[in-house]
Order: sequence, then C-alpha cells, then structure tokens
Amino acid sequence: MILILVFIQNDNIMFPAEVFVQRRKRLKELVGKGVILFLGNKEVAMNYAANNYPYRQDSSFLYYFGMDMPGLAGMIDCEQGSETIYGSDPTLEDIIWVGAQEPLQEKALKAGITRVKPLERLDGDVFRVIAHNREVHYLPPYREQRRLQLAYYDNLKYEEVDRNASEALIRAVAAQRSVKDAHELEEMEKTMTEVTREAYNKATGLIRPGSFEYNVAGALEGAVLGKNCRMAYPIICTINGQTLHNHHYGNELKKGQLLLIDAGAESPLRYATDITRTYPVDGKFTSQQKEIYKIVLDAQLEAIQAIKPGRPYYEVHMIAATAITRGLKELRLMKGDVGDAVQHGAHALFFPHGIGHMIGLDVHDMEDIGEDYIGYDQEFKRSEQFGTAYLRLAKRLQQGYVVTVEPGIYFIDPLIDKWHSEGRYRDFIDYREVNKYRGFGGIRIEDNIIVTEKGHKVIGKPIPKEIEEVEKLIGK
Amino acid sequence: MILILVFIQNDNIMFPAEVFVQRRKRLKELVGKGVILFLGNKEVAMNYAANNYPYRQDSSFLYYFGMDMPGLAGMIDCEQGSETIYGSDPTLEDIIWVGAQEPLQEKALKAGITRVKPLERLDGDVFRVIAHNREVHYLPPYREQRRLQLAYYDNLKYEEVDRNASEALIRAVAAQRSVKDAHELEEMEKTMTEVTREAYNKATGLIRPGSFEYNVAGALEGAVLGKNCRMAYPIICTINGQTLHNHHYGNELKKGQLLLIDAGAESPLRYATDITRTYPVDGKFTSQQKEIYKIVLDAQLEAIQAIKPGRPYYEVHMIAATAITRGLKELRLMKGDVGDAVQHGAHALFFPHGIGHMIGLDVHDMEDIGEDYIGYDQEFKRSEQFGTAYLRLAKRLQQGYVVTVEPGIYFIDPLIDKWHSEGRYRDFIDYREVNKYRGFGGIRIEDNIIVTEKGHKVIGKPIPKEIEEVEKLIGK
Repeated sequence: MILILVFIQNDNIMFPAEVFVQRRKRLKELVGKGVILFLGNKEVAMNYAANNYPYRQDSSFLYYFGMDMPGLAGMIDCEQGSETIYGSDPTLEDIIWVGAQEPLQEKALKAGITRVKPLERLDGDVFRVIAHNREVHYLPPYREQRRLQLAYYDNLKYEEVDRNASEALIRAVAAQRSVKDAHELEEMEKTMTEVTREAYNKATGLIRPGSFEYNVAGALEGAVLGKNCRMAYPIICTINGQTLHNHHYGNELKKGQLLLIDAGAESPLRYATDITRTYPVDGKFTSQQKEIYKIVLDAQLEAIQAIKPGRPYYEVHMIAATAITRGLKELRLMKGDVGDAVQHGAHALFFPHGIGHMIGLDVHDMEDIGEDYIGYDQEFKRSEQFGTAYLRLAKRLQQGYVVTVEPGIYFIDPLIDKWHSEGRYRDFIDYREVNKYRGFGGIRIEDNIIVTEKGHKVIGKPIPKEIEEVEKLIGK
Repeated sequence: MILILVFIQNDNIMFPAEVFVQRRKRLKELVGKGVILFLGNKEVAMNYAANNYPYRQDSSFLYYFGMDMPGLAGMIDCEQGSETIYGSDPTLEDIIWVGAQEPLQEKALKAGITRVKPLERLDGDVFRVIAHNREVHYLPPYREQRRLQLAYYDNLKYEEVDRNASEALIRAVAAQRSVKDAHELEEMEKTMTEVTREAYNKATGLIRPGSFEYNVAGALEGAVLGKNCRMAYPIICTINGQTLHNHHYGNELKKGQLLLIDAGAESPLRYATDITRTYPVDGKFTSQQKEIYKIVLDAQLEAIQAIKPGRPYYEVHMIAATAITRGLKELRLMKGDVGDAVQHGAHALFFPHGIGHMIGLDVHDMEDIGEDYIGYDQEFKRSEQFGTAYLRLAKRLQQGYVVTVEPGIYFIDPLIDKWHSEGRYRDFIDYREVNKYRGFGGIRIEDNIIVTEKGHKVIGKPIPKEIEEVEKLIGK
C-alpha cells in the first residue's frame, strides 16, 4: 500500500437540491434566531494518522446539506437567512494523487447552497457572531474532535461543551428528522429489498453445523459491501442470542442451536436498515424452540398490527409484552394474571428491552442529540421499571415516523440467578419451569415499519420469518 | 438493534506470556529511566456514542501487552521494574448484558503481568510520578482522545503534546518492533496464505466486463471477514490505478481495462498483510498492457532478489527505478542514459512513489511514531527529489525486517501535463510517445518480504502474478 493521504469522493446521487433548501428553510423558522453551526465529521485514525476508518459523515449534516465528505462545516443564519458551506478544494498537487474532483462550489449547489468559503474562514466567522452577542446553536458532540472545536469557540472546558448544546436546535432537528419524506422512504425501501434482504439470503446459505459465526457474518457483510453499501452498525451473529450485546463471532455452530442475526445495510445516502432473524442451525427447530419462536413472532405481528398515527409507542411496547407474557403463561413459565404481570414488569426477565426505536439516518435515529428528546415528551416520561426503562420511544406515533419492532425472549443465566435468589416476581414466574430452559439462548425477530396515514407498512419485500419458511432457507 | 453499550471480547490466542515479558524487559533496558506510559485505544463513535467503529487496539500496546480491548493503560517503571495494567472488569450488572468475561487479572497474566489496578487509579499514579520529577515517556498520539489525556497529564496545550513525546521511547520501540520474531512471522505467513490469498482467489472470480468495482471489493472483504479477520487498511480496487489514493468503488468494469487491487487481511492478532495485483478485466492483456506489466513484474522480481541483510533499502528502490527506466526506454517512452535518468529522477513521472515500507502490526509499520525514525538514520537522510522523497524506508535492512516491494508504472494525466508544460526531463522522456499511453491507467505488483539470515523470503504461498497465470484466473 502506497497511500499518503486520502480524499474520499462520494458520488452517490443526492436528493434534489430543493429537498435540502426546504429543510433548511423550515429549520430557520423553527429555531428563529441566532446562527446554527453544523460541524461535519472529520476522518478518524484507526492505528495511525493516514490509516483511517471508513468515513462517516454526521447524520444531521447529511440531512441539511447532503455532502458526504470530510473537512466541511455549514453555517445557517436564522435572521439574515444566509447559508454557508466552509471547505477546501484539493490543490493541483492533490489532484495528481486523487484524480480530478468536482469543485466544492458545484457540490454545494447540489444542496442549493451558493456561498462557499475556505475552511480557514470558519473560526473567524464564528468568533464574529459571538462578538455580536448572537447565539451559536450547535448539537451535542459525540466525538472528541468536535467537542474540542466547540470548546475552543465557546471558551469552555472540554467537559462543559455538551450542556451548552442548543435545546432549540435539538428540538427543531428532532421534529424535522423524525418525519421521513417520500425520498427517504424510497431510499430505505430500496436498500431493504435490494441489499439487506439479499444479504440475509446469502448468509442463511452458510448456516449449518460446522460453520462458524464469522463465516455467516462475513458472507452477510461481504454481500452488503458487494452492493456498494456498508453495515449500518456492527453485525450481531451469535449462538448466544441471550447475550444482548454480542459482537463476537468465534463460535462453531452446532446441531440443535439457534443462530440470532441482527444486521442491516446502510444505504448509499446513509439511511439505516435494521433486521433481526433467528435460525435453527440444522434447519429444524426443536419443539421447545418452535414454541418460543411462535410466541415472539405472534408478539411481533400483534405489535406491528397496532401501529398507526396517534398510537403511543409505549402501548405498542405493552402489547408485545402482554403477548409474550400470555404465551409464556401457556408454557407455564409465567403464571398469575397476565395484565398484572406486565404492569409489574415480570415479563422483563425474558424480554428485558424496549420494543423498538426510530430509524433513519442513524440506526437509533438521532440518539446523538438525546434519546429523551426523540422518544419522550410532556405526555410520556421514561419509566424507571427494569426493561421498560430501556424503551427508546414512548410518545405518540405520527405519519412518516419509521420505527423498528423487535420483541425477543431470552434465557439469561445471570439475570435468572439474580431474580431467583432475590425471590423477585415469585407470583408471576415459575423458576422451576424456567430452569428447564437454561442454555436455550434467545430469539428476536425485527422489522422496520413506516407509520402511514391510516396505519403502517413493513419496509421492503418480506424477509422470511414464518417457521416453515425459515427452516427451508438454512444451508440452501 | 437493541444495543445499549458494547464490550468487545477478543479471545484470540495470544503469543506465550514470555514473549511479552521479554519485550518489556528489553524495553526497560533500552529506555533506561523514568516511567513508560502506554495508553490503550478507546472506542470511537461512528455516528453516535453507542454505534462504534470496529475496535482497533493501539499497535504498540498490543506489542508489549497483547491485550486487545478498550479501556486499558499500561505503565512500566524502568528503574523499579514494576509493570501495571490499568482497567476495569464488567460489573455484575454488565454481565447480564455482555455474558461472562474472563477477569482482567487473568487476561493480564497471559501477558505476564500480575499487577492490575482499576482505571480510576491511573491519573493519580501518573501525577505521582510527575510530582517526583521523574520523566513520563509516551509515544506521539494519533487520535484526539489520547492527545487530550496526555495534555491533561502534562499540563500542556492540546497542540503541544506531540513534540513532548519521548525520543528515547520512540527509538526503543522502533528498534524492537522493526525486527520480527518467529511468532510474528508465522502469524503473517499463515494470514497471507489462508486469508489474503484466498480472498484474492474469491475476488478474481468476479472480475469480468459488467461487474462493478464494489462487487469485486465486496467479495474480497467478505472473504476476509468470513475467516474471522478484518482488512488491514481500506481496499483499493479500481480501474483507475493511476489515481494512487483511490477508495472509490463505483465504476463498471469494461473490456480492455485493467483492475488494480491493493488489499490485505489483518490477522487475528492484528498483523497486516499488503498485496497488490493488476488484472485485465476480460482475462486478456492487450499487447500494450503486457509490455508495461512485464516491466513492472521484472522490476519487482529484481528488487526482491536484491533483498538481504546489510543492503540499504534505498538501493532496492533504485534497482526497481532502474529496471523501470530500462524497460520504458525499450518502449521508447524514455530515452538517454538509464543511470542518469534515474539519478535525476525522471522515472518518477511513471513511478512516483517509494518501492515499499516496513509492515507488521501496522501496514505502514510504526508510521504513528514517526516515519523518519523507522526508515532513516545517520547514514540515510530523506531525499528531496519528487518520487524518491516518498520512500518510507531507506536504511540498511536487518534480518527479521519485513518489507513490501511494490513497484508500479502509471500514466497520470495531470502529472504528465504538468511536467510536459514545464519541459521537465525532456532529455529523458519522450512526451510524444507518452501521450500514446494516456488512458492506460496504472499497474502495480506488490508482495511482502522477510529479510532472512542470508537473503529473503516472500511471505505466504504465491499469489499468481505471471501474465499467463493472471489471465487464467479472471472470472473463474
């Protein structure tokens, strides 16, 4: 490898310029006054300065400016209305190494921006705004490099930057980005059907006893890369589905086991997809697995069915929790009144997470700007109950929201041990029965759902999830 | 995706503990006094704090401690001899989500370290050393997060941290890491043969008119991931081989074109491999392509042949430059005396980079600690001549060095235009003939070579590079 420096050129077709113009226009109205500063992401060194991770632009920067390259900043003046992109063109010397590049001026025009200034001018312009006692709105940073730059502008200690982030800007961005337009929905649909779905197809062909988790994960990621996309988040591909945070791919697949895959492609314009399926390693669920799978699938279908504008997502979560509790009661793992059990949170032994989250330019959409701004409001406050506390989205759904629906049932040894020893929920949980399921692993099923005018629509051509369909795929 | 926080568990088999013990023992001798501080790498957020890039530990940290996980620091006291790892075990609460983990104490023992302290103790211990007026040696940082932490310890401005890095430590680390031991060589051999070579095999099967660059790059990366490895650096896979810094995969492959692939797997223990091959898209080189290919291949073989202990790598570079100039003179692209042309740097129009670099835990090994410390010394100073100035390694080779050998010939339009318009090297370059090759692209051929006791050894089972072999592979 002879690389010295790297410029990234992303020639993905952007949305029409008018889309970005309208988004910024609305943003100016929502924020009202002051200047809005969006710092684009820089490159990040992997193991030395010239060996970078794959470049990822900031999602809000993409939303308002669409320009997918490092070294940019955008400034929007709410009162004067001006919009400026700061950045630099490669020099003639650079072009020898990186080839001809579209000038920044032309790139900016594609986002409807005519004012382009050299990046060196940014600092002076920011300080001038501050000198005029005008507010500089910025979003909370999630990388040290940006936090540092904001600390410099704001004359703050590094640690103080986050709490000076602009609530007005956060609320405006959350309101805009939460509602997806037709362009965004089309991008997500296309990526789901043509990339994520195809990648699952390739991966399931490698599931069989004797394969390793990394063989399956590699096939999946390779299929996504081979379509000119990347993963929206690190793949989960594990026989230990009960270990919820699992990025380890070292295990051999064995007959009788379940393989849980949670993965999704990021579209060329950086929109996420997020799918989970659970497969029997040898192509045949055991009867115990079938029973649990059926409960999860029914809970998912029931939750999806409930999605429509005006419905609080908290209710969707509770519908799934209730369906799971009902199912587990039939299997005698749970007992007592189903409604009471759910109200008290007993189901969280098996389903200890939320039913889903918003998805868009981020897989957990806008998590960087503050989960409570995205998922909660005056009407819905975050629960403090174990399990439901992890619900990322509770408020009423609106047309244009896109959410995941991903119930699961897991048998988590340390959690069972803890609750059992503490005698928790003895009225609702039969620990003797639960012990018979130790080593079962976990099952989760997830799809991405658009909230439509009257109800909902699952994104993409269906990815098989019925028991008979799933069994047929394995090793084929 | 339901992730909240992520712990990385890397259970790759480490080298025997004694390897790390001996490395640190020697390091203490070389540095002599003061305390050596190695800050391990942290996670880096991609688009929000919980969605991280694949974790990459710092290479020098891996070299001396072998522990491949975030949240660690290592301190070595040169005088007292003590060695401490700072880090934290997951809490019982964490284990519910991440599964059981090997305790840090046991992980440290595998690197021969018995002293493990909580990470919270690090700052106090560092300040105590400073309070005793003892020197704290550190390597130059390449990520903001580490630069920030060092600035805090050293009471420095963020920008001043780099020049306070310890030259004694840099020289010691460079001396040790430059010479690879049998364990390291075996790791590189194995990865080359079983992963990188296999991945090239998969990728060449997809080369054909109508494929896209990303189809080939995706197959290659998928094959590497499918063996539980990652890429050592972003793949170059391009029909524009003349654009040296090219991470764009959007082009369709067309009959008559060349596809240049520069890619290598990173081993489970994070050792790099680095291979370049150039393929005819339709499985048949044109006679023009064949002529240039033959020159590059002969230059590469001649350069490899020259590798032995005591030989300055600068000479190997000049041997390749001479072979290229000789060949291009036969094709009448160059003219005049071959030796003079090379001495003056005329070949750099076609071969504008160095013949190679060290490779090990980094693909450009130890580039983070300073290229001039790695590749140059009292005897060899960096050239200021265009082309040779980019040579990363010039000094005398030693047994145990591992280097790349990667000559290339490129037809770079803006460079040709520039030199032609400036009338540069008119005595050595026939621009009229050169113009006939515009649109040709570029050819590079690269292998990784061990400097052995008496000479050299190419790493791994051969990856086809002879014209007939290469033609046979395409689309198969």
